Amino acid sequence: MTEESTHRYFDDLTVGEAFDLGSETVTEAEITAFAERYDPQPIHTDPAAAAESTFGQLVASGWHTAAISMRRFVEGVVDNAGIAVVAGVEVENLRWRRPVTPGDVLTARAEITGLEEWDEKRGIVRFELVVRSDEGEPVLQLTKRVLVGRK
Amino acid sequence: MTEESTHRYFDDLTVGEAFDLGSETVTEAEITAFAERYDPQPIHTDPAAAAESTFGQLVASGWHTAAISMRRFVEGVVDNAGIAVVAGVEVENLRWRRPVTPGDVLTARAEITGLEEWDEKRGIVRFELVVRSDEGEPVLQLTKRVLVGRK
Repeated sequence: MTEESTHRYFDDLTVGEAFDLGSETVTEAEITAFAERYDPQPIHTDPAAAAESTFGQLVASGWHTAAISMRRFVEGVVDNAGIAVVAGVEVENLRWRRPVTPGDVLTARAEITGLEEWDEKRGIVRFELVVRSDEGEPVLQLTKRVLVGRK
Repeated sequence: MTEESTHRYFDDLTVGEAFDLGSETVTEAEITAFAERYDPQPIHTDPAAAAESTFGQLVASGWHTAAISMRRFVEGVVDNAGIAVVAGVEVENLRWRRPVTPGDVLTARAEITGLEEWDEKRGIVRFELVVRSDEGEPVLQLTKRVLVGRK
């Protein structure tokens, strides 16, 4: 295949198209490493202090779960589906629905919910992204608008 | 001071109150380290490839800038102002306004734009957070709703 044929552009996409973004396990080491750097609060960094909190145990920073959703998006939408993503523009809404704790297996899925013309070179694709826990319950949901190249 | 007097609770806060969240320099090493883990795209991880892109240079992952905004929020709102933050609930809107590049000095500020009663133990505080570049231009803006403890 030529490089052209491995990529999908704005004009190739349709509303309702969905992408399986795969699964990954969240470890205690990753939760504390992220939080020590970007969200240094005891419920994210200190298992003993977290056990005394209302959560009763260590929970991942919400921004860590959001960052994991981006890693899944890059793998599933950019690398596997070959969509010509240029840049994120905006998150319309992001909700943290349930805490993420060590050992959770997170599974992510994205669906195209909107397509907007932008200019001759790019369009805006609206994705609804959901990250679910082992039990299938949503832990994070977000809607984002992303610039995608045109042919 | 007793522990009580160093904390501020939901009922102590007012709409319009603003918090200086300080400044920090974003390094190329931090940009690539974050992106290798959470947003592995060449414009964030590979200076040579980034130089050939529409951005013309390495740019930080938008989720990295968002994570930096949380680090600033924890320092300024949780640690320095002593506000009894329990958890983030939702980001109503997040916009990446301009690219962040190595050496940029980012300055953040948060303002309370809403207060909602929740239950006897907690209220919801709405913060508007802006991260600006050296030139004072906004690079990231977000509005979030955060659970804060009551007295």
